[in-house]
Amino acid sequence: MSDITPPALPETETLSAPAERRRRSGGRGAERQRPAGAPKYRNLVNRLAKTELLDQQALDDIHEASLTVLEEIGMDIILPEAREIMRRAGASVTEGTERVRFDRGLIMDMIASAPSQFTLHARNPARNVAIGGNNLVFAQVASAPFVADREGGRRAGNQEDYRKLIKLAQCYDIIHTTGGYPVEPVDIHASIRHLDCLSDLAKLTDKPFHAYSLGKQRNLDGLEIARIARGISTEQMEQEPSLFTIINSSSPLRLDGPMLQGIIEMSSRNQVVVITPFTLAGAMAPVTIAGALVQQNAEALCGIAFTQMVRKGAPVMYGGFTSNVDMKTGAPAFGTPEYMKAVVAGGQLARRYGIPYRTSNTNASNTLDAQAAYESALSLWALTQGGGNFIMHAAGWTEGGLTASFEKFILDVDMLQMVAEFLTPLDVSPDALALDAVRDVGPGGHFFGTAHTLARYESAFYSPLLSDWRNYETWTEAGRPTTYDHANRIYKEALARYERPPLDPAIEEELDAFVARRKAEGGVATDF
Amino acid sequence: MSDITPPALPETETLSAPAERRRRSGGRGAERQRPAGAPKYRNLVNRLAKTELLDQQALDDIHEASLTVLEEIGMDIILPEAREIMRRAGASVTEGTERVRFDRGLIMDMIASAPSQFTLHARNPARNVAIGGNNLVFAQVASAPFVADREGGRRAGNQEDYRKLIKLAQCYDIIHTTGGYPVEPVDIHASIRHLDCLSDLAKLTDKPFHAYSLGKQRNLDGLEIARIARGISTEQMEQEPSLFTIINSSSPLRLDGPMLQGIIEMSSRNQVVVITPFTLAGAMAPVTIAGALVQQNAEALCGIAFTQMVRKGAPVMYGGFTSNVDMKTGAPAFGTPEYMKAVVAGGQLARRYGIPYRTSNTNASNTLDAQAAYESALSLWALTQGGGNFIMHAAGWTEGGLTASFEKFILDVDMLQMVAEFLTPLDVSPDALALDAVRDVGPGGHFFGTAHTLARYESAFYSPLLSDWRNYETWTEAGRPTTYDHANRIYKEALARYERPPLDPAIEEELDAFVARRKAEGGVATDF
Repeated sequence: MSDITPPALPETETLSAPAERRRRSGGRGAERQRPAGAPKYRNLVNRLAKTELLDQQALDDIHEASLTVLEEIGMDIILPEAREIMRRAGASVTEGTERVRFDRGLIMDMIASAPSQFTLHARNPARNVAIGGNNLVFAQVASAPFVADREGGRRAGNQEDYRKLIKLAQCYDIIHTTGGYPVEPVDIHASIRHLDCLSDLAKLTDKPFHAYSLGKQRNLDGLEIARIARGISTEQMEQEPSLFTIINSSSPLRLDGPMLQGIIEMSSRNQVVVITPFTLAGAMAPVTIAGALVQQNAEALCGIAFTQMVRKGAPVMYGGFTSNVDMKTGAPAFGTPEYMKAVVAGGQLARRYGIPYRTSNTNASNTLDAQAAYESALSLWALTQGGGNFIMHAAGWTEGGLTASFEKFILDVDMLQMVAEFLTPLDVSPDALALDAVRDVGPGGHFFGTAHTLARYESAFYSPLLSDWRNYETWTEAGRPTTYDHANRIYKEALARYERPPLDPAIEEELDAFVARRKAEGGVATDF
Repeated sequence: MSDITPPALPETETLSAPAERRRRSGGRGAERQRPAGAPKYRNLVNRLAKTELLDQQALDDIHEASLTVLEEIGMDIILPEAREIMRRAGASVTEGTERVRFDRGLIMDMIASAPSQFTLHARNPARNVAIGGNNLVFAQVASAPFVADREGGRRAGNQEDYRKLIKLAQCYDIIHTTGGYPVEPVDIHASIRHLDCLSDLAKLTDKPFHAYSLGKQRNLDGLEIARIARGISTEQMEQEPSLFTIINSSSPLRLDGPMLQGIIEMSSRNQVVVITPFTLAGAMAPVTIAGALVQQNAEALCGIAFTQMVRKGAPVMYGGFTSNVDMKTGAPAFGTPEYMKAVVAGGQLARRYGIPYRTSNTNASNTLDAQAAYESALSLWALTQGGGNFIMHAAGWTEGGLTASFEKFILDVDMLQMVAEFLTPLDVSPDALALDAVRDVGPGGHFFGTAHTLARYESAFYSPLLSDWRNYETWTEAGRPTTYDHANRIYKEALARYERPPLDPAIEEELDAFVARRKAEGGVATDF
């Protein structure tokens, strides 16, 4: 933990300061006096006591079973260089095979050096995000092959939609980071796609971003783009994690070459690695949620241990993605009661190890209907109460991750903002207790026009983006718009308001030159 | 508490026993061996540690402020008989006015005798519901003036729709009781409406039910119908609460005559009273949530204390209905972050007093869109994590309570069942930990056809009513149905499956004779 910079934003100072709290602590004025567009939802802190579904014995049982998996069964490690690192660290590599087994003591020794909290740096320091502890970070949808909006329908990803989506991520403070490519822009050739995409992430947003681990060169290009965007030296970047990568195991019990390479490139440079097994119960993992959690935990601990074998103290997150499948069809299901249980139990496991917890805002709906909303809301319930720290796919993910939806992005932003408001401490100052107001109004009166109300009503409550609270008659006159209609309008309004965040022209020039040079070199060799 | 029968279903035995738990405790067979239609969701228990938003000091502050309201401002009590009962109990009645003030010691003395747990009896003992502690009871939508389904649109309530809705309540075990008239059937004359409606509740369902407190005679008719339906004596009924009534204060700080009369008639006979202030922050209560909670608490404590003045130990619930308004229009808002806070804080207050907590599943949507789902899901989140015991409007409530929706009823049933599944303990038996299955499959395999999966897959996961998990292409071929479409189909299928619960013909005859006699007497005099 020693070589990680402490979080720039300690928990006690990172909470958003809504009008109520400011008034309580001396009060520099109400919400309406805050300049329009000033940040409200940065640096969220979740002070709720975290929900526990597993008692200590059950937690121990899952922990021990997962260590038994790593000790007795082991993992297939599809990269010689990684096996060699593991062997040197004390793991048992079966010569002539890819199988590696890990003594339980080795795993526990290794994960002990993973930091419990760290900062992911953005090119705009105000956008740095604190990860771990009670911090709650929302990352935009990532990696969807399709994109959809109401007019255009569902279509393959392209650069135009890609850019629109990352502009939307910039528009809302509740979206703390992008999470990868919100949609895969297949109209850009794969050899240079990462150069264009990462350059866009660095220029069109000032938030932290992600690079895919799809071969060493792509990792190196991502690292360089993140460094240039921040205008810092390689040495400073090694002190200040400024890029993250998602590492998925190929469940069950396998880590593929590019993923292992990604850990080596990123962890050795002290950048952020998120180890996320994709353990669908009944498909790539046992059909029981407890069994899927055992496997998730084994795979996660293996990956986390490997980051620490590469570099002690490298920042890493414990990722959970356990859900169930529809046993009638084998289709993945999300936002289900089983998903909720897995998310909450996964949080208990991550906290047991003192490692920041990554989870996701999921749903499997094909459109923006009630299902999309309830599956997401149940996901948000579980990840909030269960203590998620870093929430992938927090906005825009739909259809089990196959589609990035513009309208779903807005729906999620609204729901995330509501979660943030729920987490804002309740003001119980004497003024808020309102005894004088109750006295003034007395039995049988009303509070509409009172001084107490007039002084507060503009900022008293969260004003949702989507909820249509007009009465039925007025709503009917307006053509009975649904949430889908409102979201469609609002995402376009947001895009129209989008402003590119300021960037030093020298940095932009350096970025463009780097991308041009790497393109001229052919980008990355592809075999398709 | 002494004269209340202990709950028939002690908490430790009342949890639904899904296949997982049965297997763990010795296992009499998997879910699929349970007879179709056997109860699954009766007697829900919520073992989660309850979320707290208020620290002890804040909780004390709200408590003390509400006692100050009752002591210094008091309540308007619009019934001479009630004021006399209060005066005899030690309250300070200002002669010549309706104002009554209550010493804080008097309030605390009075509420101390309210039971922390009791049983509400149904005519079918298997439908009895345990109220308080960790028990979680869902009551159907109540009191909507309008009813809606997709084909018929939104219309005034009528007897046909009324009957359909209570038949639906009978169809699903997750609906533990009806909650009043799901919709007001205005095609029945008001003088006899309660007779037809209560008779329907007693005959078409075998679950507990509610009688409105709209004058003494209606209470007495409701009590008699509940007694006849159970086939018991007046004496037995007085030992076994078998009817409940919702008592709303006329916020701020007023209890109207029929409500006070209802408490007198019901509490004096040891029947269940639910005291629910309707404290919309910014309208009938202060614009701050803390202030609205102070007023809610004052009004609730006053009503609860009055039940105990009428009869020590009479069963009573602490009702919370604090939400905010849309400050642009004054329209009530529900399922908001402010609502969530009020629900969770209200639970802390109710638990402080050891009184069962009534809250609601709310939303303000005009249709079955994403808004309807997320506002309800956020309500369910707050009331589950916040420790609600008795959930009014749990299924079918929409448009801020103006409309009972057939499709929303199905959506809510599905969400309630998901909540129940989330609350089911996770099986962590050795068999569920699945080490052998992981060993058998090994790295790189899959679990689809394994013995461990085949033995469990039919019952491993909750099978939702509505979620459409087909892939996009199949879903498109099916005409892209939304949740709304599925709910429309499912409510009709459920009605087609409805069977009247068995009723002793002698009891039915007695019920019919009572209703006929009371109708011949003219029912209840109305002045409109």
